[in-house]
Amino acid sequence: MDNLDLMKHISILSPTKIVLLVIDGLGGLPSPKTGKTELETANTPNLDRLANKGTCGLIDPVSPGITPGSTPAHLALFGCDPVRFNIGRGVVEAMGIDFDLKPGDIAARGNFCTVDEAGLVTDRRAGRIPTEKCAELCRLLDGLVIEGVKLLVCPVKEHRFITVFRGEGLAPEVSDSDPQQVGVVPRMVVAQHAKARKTANIAKEFISQAKTILVKHHPANMVLLRGFSRRPNLPTMPEVYKLKPAAIASYPMYRGLARLVGMQVLETGTSIKQEFATLKQNYNDYDFFFVHIKETDSAGEDGDFDRKVRIIEEIDKALPTLTSLDPDVIVVTGDHSTPALLRGHSWHPVPILLYSQWCRPDRVEGFSELACISGGLGRLPATQVMPLAMANALKLTKFGA
Amino acid sequence: MDNLDLMKHISILSPTKIVLLVIDGLGGLPSPKTGKTELETANTPNLDRLANKGTCGLIDPVSPGITPGSTPAHLALFGCDPVRFNIGRGVVEAMGIDFDLKPGDIAARGNFCTVDEAGLVTDRRAGRIPTEKCAELCRLLDGLVIEGVKLLVCPVKEHRFITVFRGEGLAPEVSDSDPQQVGVVPRMVVAQHAKARKTANIAKEFISQAKTILVKHHPANMVLLRGFSRRPNLPTMPEVYKLKPAAIASYPMYRGLARLVGMQVLETGTSIKQEFATLKQNYNDYDFFFVHIKETDSAGEDGDFDRKVRIIEEIDKALPTLTSLDPDVIVVTGDHSTPALLRGHSWHPVPILLYSQWCRPDRVEGFSELACISGGLGRLPATQVMPLAMANALKLTKFGA
Repeated sequence: MDNLDLMKHISILSPTKIVLLVIDGLGGLPSPKTGKTELETANTPNLDRLANKGTCGLIDPVSPGITPGSTPAHLALFGCDPVRFNIGRGVVEAMGIDFDLKPGDIAARGNFCTVDEAGLVTDRRAGRIPTEKCAELCRLLDGLVIEGVKLLVCPVKEHRFITVFRGEGLAPEVSDSDPQQVGVVPRMVVAQHAKARKTANIAKEFISQAKTILVKHHPANMVLLRGFSRRPNLPTMPEVYKLKPAAIASYPMYRGLARLVGMQVLETGTSIKQEFATLKQNYNDYDFFFVHIKETDSAGEDGDFDRKVRIIEEIDKALPTLTSLDPDVIVVTGDHSTPALLRGHSWHPVPILLYSQWCRPDRVEGFSELACISGGLGRLPATQVMPLAMANALKLTKFGA
Repeated sequence: MDNLDLMKHISILSPTKIVLLVIDGLGGLPSPKTGKTELETANTPNLDRLANKGTCGLIDPVSPGITPGSTPAHLALFGCDPVRFNIGRGVVEAMGIDFDLKPGDIAARGNFCTVDEAGLVTDRRAGRIPTEKCAELCRLLDGLVIEGVKLLVCPVKEHRFITVFRGEGLAPEVSDSDPQQVGVVPRMVVAQHAKARKTANIAKEFISQAKTILVKHHPANMVLLRGFSRRPNLPTMPEVYKLKPAAIASYPMYRGLARLVGMQVLETGTSIKQEFATLKQNYNDYDFFFVHIKETDSAGEDGDFDRKVRIIEEIDKALPTLTSLDPDVIVVTGDHSTPALLRGHSWHPVPILLYSQWCRPDRVEGFSELACISGGLGRLPATQVMPLAMANALKLTKFGA
């Protein structure tokens, strides 16, 4: 019996409500000037008050030392083992553009790239062509039918696109054509399982036709495909936790992930204020809310320490909209750390605060990486967040007699 | 190799002694009036001295967020994975009345219940009939022989009883008849495996005969059975840890559990003082003692904060009887938390203190939930308690070269 089986076994319906506020890339590293992280620098009286009343700790999205992508990091927060439930790159990319993947579809991530006369890849990103150019080229490739299978080609951003194979007899077990280096020819797509032979043949034929169609479109004169995958059959939150969950996220990718675990995705705006307003408007209709704020991660990725600080302060200012709803359980955390100093996701554990009437308070008085070290939750895997939230909402019965 | 295999592999005989003092339901929640938990409120100079000399931490009986029953919580303390070694309800109930279950016996938990003329369950507990009435009705059902199998029926408390199937060709894989709700007919007992067909048939016949026998005994005019199970084959402490272990517990259920893991159960009285006296009397004859004190949990379940405080103080007063024996390792902890505020078991981690000549001290100066957060043991699963106790008793050799 794994974690999710256990949850399924002991979760019960109850009228209590949980709000999980995910501040993307929340964890940081101290500025060499001040010795304080982004969160420690930000003036956050509301988060501090909540940390003071609640209990704090640090979570590891996957395990200590592992820097996660957004997908595994979120799956862990939703209680799914992020190593066991790995979602293919093609599917992630499709979710990122709100593409409505059907259960049988195979999605692959594509790059427009440059090849020379000998067919060697000289630029895996075709000089990062503008997104409009990408869209124009996608229109040339979109809608091909090969062996009765329709190929849908949609632009993502710059050189990135997706190819979706829709039809009968497909399987995702095929190798990448992207060689992940320049100076070599693209790899041959190979079926890694007998049942994927048809898919591999179609992929080869698509690549061959694409080469012909793109021949005069230098630098985008070839395509590379990778991450062939099918929408995974994830355990859903209604099924595992008996929740009626809703997601409030302004980025498509997080809406896609939320949908995969059975959340209702709510219409919302792009600002923090609008997201919190959406929470307020829909508060009566659901018992679990995943509220996702992306901008902290983007600032961290840009290496913009001060902007990350400002966004955290903006969240703190908006927080009373959330707390005044008086949810039974409030969890504030991140999916992973994105220290501005590292300009990217990192492996550092992520601060978490959990507030409920039934949490056992600790000595933490403010919400920060440093304070969370001595929090009552200790250091725990992110997959434990949902069990703790459920317990604090009195939505779990006793295990065993 | 799991935890127990590893222990079996590296445990060695040695003359050192370990005392594991389990204060049932030890962990609590702060009183809103004082901000202090039961343990923090209690005046416990002896426990505080031990915590000061030793090392402290917090344990999770199953995993964060999971509220355990007494059975899984104790199995974890004895080193057994409480999810893997789940003990059926029938067996737990039989242990609770000190019933001597034979290896082949199948035990089921029974409820006397009320059904109406249509056979619909109107009260799953038959109005909680007095225990004497239950005993009287059990005598009417006890001793039936069906298909050569003897059915033993013993009262537990109020509407609760056990039915033990004793004979050849039995198997526990049969479904419950208890529908766990009113307004419906009892469920049909169904074999979940071919080998359990005979058991299912006997159960159905027993229920049918019971219905006839009880027809005039409204409100207890029917029975519901659930949790068909057989005594599990648990790894025993002598076999895994090479210990000669003894149990001192005044409640039958804990004696039953101790027996299942191969402990010798010592005769003792019902008071804390008597239990400690039993420890002293038998100290020379064993090298591991499980001392179980139930009253803290009962006080917690009753929501009686002050009584729980008083019992903890009583334990503290008796503690010198234990410490003066100078065991090589003393572990004081609980099986789970039972905050008086929640009037029941809870998911909150449990304070633990471990004292030995070889423990590495921390900065904890008193025994409390708050202090244990920053203890040297950190936060760890309860299954790690035995390895730590064994190590501190120098009863484990090096693993690997």
